[in-house]
Amino acid sequence: MRHVLILNSDKQEPLSVLQQFPDLRHTVMTSEALRSFYPEGSVVGVSDLGDVGAVLARASEVVGPGGVTDVVAMTERAVPTAAFLRSYFGLPGMKYDQALIFSNKVAMKRALAPHVPVMAFEPAASLDDLPARGEHLGWPVIVKPAFGAGSEDTIAIHSPSHAQVLDRAGVFDGLRGRRLPLIVERFADVIDEFHCDGVVRGGRVLFASASRYFAPPLTVVGDFHGSVHLSPDDPTAQALVDLHARVVAALGLDDGVTHLEVLHTAEGFVVGEVACRPGGGGITTSLRHMYGVDLWREHVAAALRLPPEVDGARPRHPGKVYGLCGLPAKGGTITRLSSADALTRLDGVYAVSMRYKPGDRLSARRSSVFFTGEVFFRLDHADDLRAFLRRLRDTYVCETDASVQAQGAGTC
Amino acid sequence: MRHVLILNSDKQEPLSVLQQFPDLRHTVMTSEALRSFYPEGSVVGVSDLGDVGAVLARASEVVGPGGVTDVVAMTERAVPTAAFLRSYFGLPGMKYDQALIFSNKVAMKRALAPHVPVMAFEPAASLDDLPARGEHLGWPVIVKPAFGAGSEDTIAIHSPSHAQVLDRAGVFDGLRGRRLPLIVERFADVIDEFHCDGVVRGGRVLFASASRYFAPPLTVVGDFHGSVHLSPDDPTAQALVDLHARVVAALGLDDGVTHLEVLHTAEGFVVGEVACRPGGGGITTSLRHMYGVDLWREHVAAALRLPPEVDGARPRHPGKVYGLCGLPAKGGTITRLSSADALTRLDGVYAVSMRYKPGDRLSARRSSVFFTGEVFFRLDHADDLRAFLRRLRDTYVCETDASVQAQGAGTC
Repeated sequence: MRHVLILNSDKQEPLSVLQQFPDLRHTVMTSEALRSFYPEGSVVGVSDLGDVGAVLARASEVVGPGGVTDVVAMTERAVPTAAFLRSYFGLPGMKYDQALIFSNKVAMKRALAPHVPVMAFEPAASLDDLPARGEHLGWPVIVKPAFGAGSEDTIAIHSPSHAQVLDRAGVFDGLRGRRLPLIVERFADVIDEFHCDGVVRGGRVLFASASRYFAPPLTVVGDFHGSVHLSPDDPTAQALVDLHARVVAALGLDDGVTHLEVLHTAEGFVVGEVACRPGGGGITTSLRHMYGVDLWREHVAAALRLPPEVDGARPRHPGKVYGLCGLPAKGGTITRLSSADALTRLDGVYAVSMRYKPGDRLSARRSSVFFTGEVFFRLDHADDLRAFLRRLRDTYVCETDASVQAQGAGTC
Repeated sequence: MRHVLILNSDKQEPLSVLQQFPDLRHTVMTSEALRSFYPEGSVVGVSDLGDVGAVLARASEVVGPGGVTDVVAMTERAVPTAAFLRSYFGLPGMKYDQALIFSNKVAMKRALAPHVPVMAFEPAASLDDLPARGEHLGWPVIVKPAFGAGSEDTIAIHSPSHAQVLDRAGVFDGLRGRRLPLIVERFADVIDEFHCDGVVRGGRVLFASASRYFAPPLTVVGDFHGSVHLSPDDPTAQALVDLHARVVAALGLDDGVTHLEVLHTAEGFVVGEVACRPGGGGITTSLRHMYGVDLWREHVAAALRLPPEVDGARPRHPGKVYGLCGLPAKGGTITRLSSADALTRLDGVYAVSMRYKPGDRLSARRSSVFFTGEVFFRLDHADDLRAFLRRLRDTYVCETDASVQAQGAGTC
């Protein structure tokens, strides 16, 4: 019987799909803080799923007779770590250097640049190198950690003096403290931003769905944020699906689920980043409703080299406009928060997923994925989006009080 | 200016070749215990050069402006770790998954098996899997850690009941405590054992020298041990050099120095292991005398992608038989030890390298490379070897007393 080591946060969705695969047993490895989400005996804790040393030490302890036969990462942070374990233990599936192409943005851009448009970029060992990199690339630039999901510690810098101002204001403190290698990129004047979510098996794209973000993520931190899935017949969608196929070929991906970010600039489409795992923030749930395709199921199937279910899905309700919207969270203890029931009553909403409830305490984070939950909607026309979002903003309530002691356990 | 991070033990030879390369500055990373061998300010200590987590954390701390541009491993234990740093930081040179082919024996044998003869093998997650592996491969078997140099914790097992006897005697304790993945191999009836040392650049073998061990290492632990370099015109040498080229092709090595171990069994040559670094135990010194080829210089040049010096070297004194012999060490405080001068007076000896002196304290280790030093010899005929070794055994003195307190600092 195969023994699958699952590297996961507290996400329940990807774990539930494991039941679809018979003849597997699994052990979850998660961060110590999240151990309590799992039944005792099925979980091992580790200080940090991104720490290869810690994860390797823990994995070496838990292997029993027969050992671990497969390692699956359910969270971005664990993608390179899981691949490291596969490489180290000689297990089948994506190896470390391949996974780095999806998780180290320098390796990623180097692999992409010869094949698809990317913003000019340079690696930087530390912030000390920022002035030279900016000079060489031309200001303004974006600096961010070479590793990391979301837009955490992603900082736009307009000039050397702007960098000094930001530094004095402590904006670089997080980046400096994390001691990660950095990537500096020419700042893109973004007109529109898209994501494309795909399933690749044997190097062939079996499914790809293009979506348009409401607005580029970097401009909407702390606000409503989401995307609308484009019809497969939309010419923009077709161009994005084509670009996705070129990205898959450029990176040499054989088997996996992809989440590609594409910027639309004055110069045309530019590839932002591409991850080798289902998109977060409700995208997977939304696409399951629209297409009947379960990207978590496909992710696990690809990692375990089991047959895919999808091959060229079409929307279940052609003509309808599907999308999702994250509900902005605030730091502090939640005093008032819209219920799923209240939001479901909104015209166009067909499902709501709330992660928190009044009494939960949230830490303030600067990230594009800090939501209390997601609203899934289905509209008759793309033009209805603006009015729908206005209704949602008018209805949604999230109030927090930083001085109130937490009454429940909240994680984010 | 390039900033090279050198992962090294206390070996001085590989460091001295760095001076041949201008426009480099370097920082040494070594284990905490060996820091004192280096001048303060040029060295950083780490708990264990084989611990990727610890090495990554330390490397992330020491990168300054411009960062580290290159990483070079000078010791077997650091080969995968150095490659891990290159992969993680996106630095040029051999990446982690390629390096694993040279350091994880399971990955190595899997890559070799389709192309060259290897003993039947199977991975094992732990010793619990040993009976099943032995049953499947057929007894007797050899079990050893998938990672590791020398023959430390390499154990021959004749049957399941023999395994139980060994286990009760504590023979497996070291293996169990190290929690490394294991490889189980069919035991080879070895007639003769060889090594082949090469230089590969751009996938082409520029130099390869075949040598015959005095006796298979596993049978000579605690005794004299060494090898004789075969003439390039010897048909056995030519067969081994050809096998070396096939191994290089099978593993896809582009640039590096190789140290290949070959077993001669009743079924012919069988590839044992292959490392991507100069051979230890004086082999590099001996080949430098015989050919004028400096494998440490070539190792560094390959790692830094600088031009090689060697291309098809011939022996400096054709017809002479070159070889080296390790001088067996014993655990305890050295009370008497032959001096280099005394050994140099032996007929045939042209150089001696002693690592220890009376008063040094040595820990007993079961390994094939536990020597007090090496003797380098040059004979007129291969037939002279037996008489030479007899003279060496009669002359060499190493006496230790486990009860005497150490007066000097000995490391091994």
